[in-house]
Amino acid sequence: MLICMEATRVRAMLARAPGLTAEHVRALFALTGGEANLHDAADALRQVEMPAAARAFLNAPDPLLLRCDLHWIEASGAQLILCTDAAYPPLLAQTAGAPPVLFVLGCVEALHSPQLAMVGSRNPTPAGRKTARDFAVGLARAGLTITSGLAVGVDAASHEGALLVDGASTVAVCGTGLDAVYPSENRKLAARIRERGALVSEFPPRTGPSRRNFPRRNRIISGLSHGTLVVEAARRSGSLVTARLAVEQGREVFAIPGSIHSPLSRGCHKLIRDGATLVETAGDVLSELQIPLCGQWLTRPGAAGEGIPTLDKEYEMLLDAFGFEPATLDVLVARTGLPGESIASMLLILELEGCVAALPGGRYDRIPE
Amino acid sequence: MLICMEATRVRAMLARAPGLTAEHVRALFALTGGEANLHDAADALRQVEMPAAARAFLNAPDPLLLRCDLHWIEASGAQLILCTDAAYPPLLAQTAGAPPVLFVLGCVEALHSPQLAMVGSRNPTPAGRKTARDFAVGLARAGLTITSGLAVGVDAASHEGALLVDGASTVAVCGTGLDAVYPSENRKLAARIRERGALVSEFPPRTGPSRRNFPRRNRIISGLSHGTLVVEAARRSGSLVTARLAVEQGREVFAIPGSIHSPLSRGCHKLIRDGATLVETAGDVLSELQIPLCGQWLTRPGAAGEGIPTLDKEYEMLLDAFGFEPATLDVLVARTGLPGESIASMLLILELEGCVAALPGGRYDRIPE
Repeated sequence: MLICMEATRVRAMLARAPGLTAEHVRALFALTGGEANLHDAADALRQVEMPAAARAFLNAPDPLLLRCDLHWIEASGAQLILCTDAAYPPLLAQTAGAPPVLFVLGCVEALHSPQLAMVGSRNPTPAGRKTARDFAVGLARAGLTITSGLAVGVDAASHEGALLVDGASTVAVCGTGLDAVYPSENRKLAARIRERGALVSEFPPRTGPSRRNFPRRNRIISGLSHGTLVVEAARRSGSLVTARLAVEQGREVFAIPGSIHSPLSRGCHKLIRDGATLVETAGDVLSELQIPLCGQWLTRPGAAGEGIPTLDKEYEMLLDAFGFEPATLDVLVARTGLPGESIASMLLILELEGCVAALPGGRYDRIPE
Repeated sequence: MLICMEATRVRAMLARAPGLTAEHVRALFALTGGEANLHDAADALRQVEMPAAARAFLNAPDPLLLRCDLHWIEASGAQLILCTDAAYPPLLAQTAGAPPVLFVLGCVEALHSPQLAMVGSRNPTPAGRKTARDFAVGLARAGLTITSGLAVGVDAASHEGALLVDGASTVAVCGTGLDAVYPSENRKLAARIRERGALVSEFPPRTGPSRRNFPRRNRIISGLSHGTLVVEAARRSGSLVTARLAVEQGREVFAIPGSIHSPLSRGCHKLIRDGATLVETAGDVLSELQIPLCGQWLTRPGAAGEGIPTLDKEYEMLLDAFGFEPATLDVLVARTGLPGESIASMLLILELEGCVAALPGGRYDRIPE
């Protein structure tokens, strides 16, 4: 029986009730008139439909279990956000099967900022890792909070990218209790995320890593977010689960293409074939999302005049030196009078900016704007 | 006035009438009762709507021009296929603005085989060139004729891939008259195509290369084909014109994705965003087309291990260190832990073996197998 519990204890108890969702809790509170009146809730517990295990637990919660939970909650400073709180993230609240309670370490406000989920392989290519970080930087600069799963690989690179941006925030959704960091190699990263954003879990303390909890974690990642961006993923990857959940939740899915020879692009290509939006830049994500953001918007390189860095004179001269045919370095040296080394490094920069393409046989060609 | 011309002369004349299409010719023949009766066609020419320049030319064709054309036709063995002939390619006949007459050198039968258009950059990356050839081999083996534009780069690699397959055929659609090969560096390739497939043009002999003729050529490439596959293309590329024409003609468009850092993938990514089917293998194209073919179907590469030469361990490690992006020597040293000198000499060997390409700025890239 539930008699005279103070608020945190009620929340800790609701968090432990197996299979209980936000919908069940809302139905329960509709009958009792709110969490404060759960002291005489025996009737309500009988009336509201919920999993038998949840009902059994709520009728007779394990007092030792709850005492340990409350002890950790007090010691860690964790906050418990109930699905009926104003502090509960609104986008997550709209999803089916949302957790009744969220454990949060860090800034609860981060959960109310506009979020984009970034997920991908735990073993990305070096380029994939950099792509994750670069996209996270661009999206965070635009004012998005980057939400991911604190895994190694793309998850960690995405969190790290967001942390590189002054004033930006990042949310890590964990598939374990927040009393331990999993995987442990991300302990330092977790500490930085707690300071600048939030660590979130629906799992009570002392919930260790378990294979079946990660898809549950994924539905929170996608549910918190306006969209999910998949960076690199194999054909059978957990990231594809997150993408599917995002679709079911009515959210956008974005995927970054790559070489057809890279096994880690297969998952993204599959998503694109299934309707995900192919994105080449953070700007592509932003223009598709169309949500008001307070950060600096990134423009697509080369799209409109604004935001395109103007090339300085020497670069313009080098581009002009191409005429309309591919040219070798020697030819460009002869035409511009610039030293070969300078031209080589300028060409590299122009190549990265998409103004020049390297061709076989040491030739280069200007790419028309 | 058109009096008593023999068939070839009529065709050569129709081919030269500016702006005349297959629709005009069909309307004309409906009134005259066929090409044989064009000798008293003054009335019909007045009644059928057609461009003024075409009407003027047909009323008073330049006899010297036609004599030269007929001379070349006889000397070269070119065939002139009229839009009302059974030999006229049926898929092309269904398209709006189809040419009234096709000049063909080689096997007219190739124009009746199921065709797939392959187009792309004239300056592809080394990997793109290989991808074009590999897809052409796979599609040709499956029984498709590869149709392209005889340009350097992706076009040439596609034709060459088809020619590698015993019994397969390839069609080159030219934007110039068939009396000269453009570009001239593809002269040998053109000769092989003529032997194994067909060279096709709507342009009479002595029509030199002209910028405005290439989009017209492109509509024939896409019009002959069940679908158009774009291999590598910059954001503003003629290949995108061909793809747009294919869509207008109600044909499939396929595009191969690539690194978001490659300017030559931008065009393909744009197409995919606009609805083209992303393909990773020749098999993807075939399963989307769903047309009955007589060739051997290819299985997805990587499905079976056969035929891939084994490198020794250190070389494999070095190739793996690339991921799927270009890398500098320093980066490769850091990733492999091998000494810089060893890597430099290994790169040279790999370059000679065609496994690695040297790029500007001291970078290298792995060429996919």
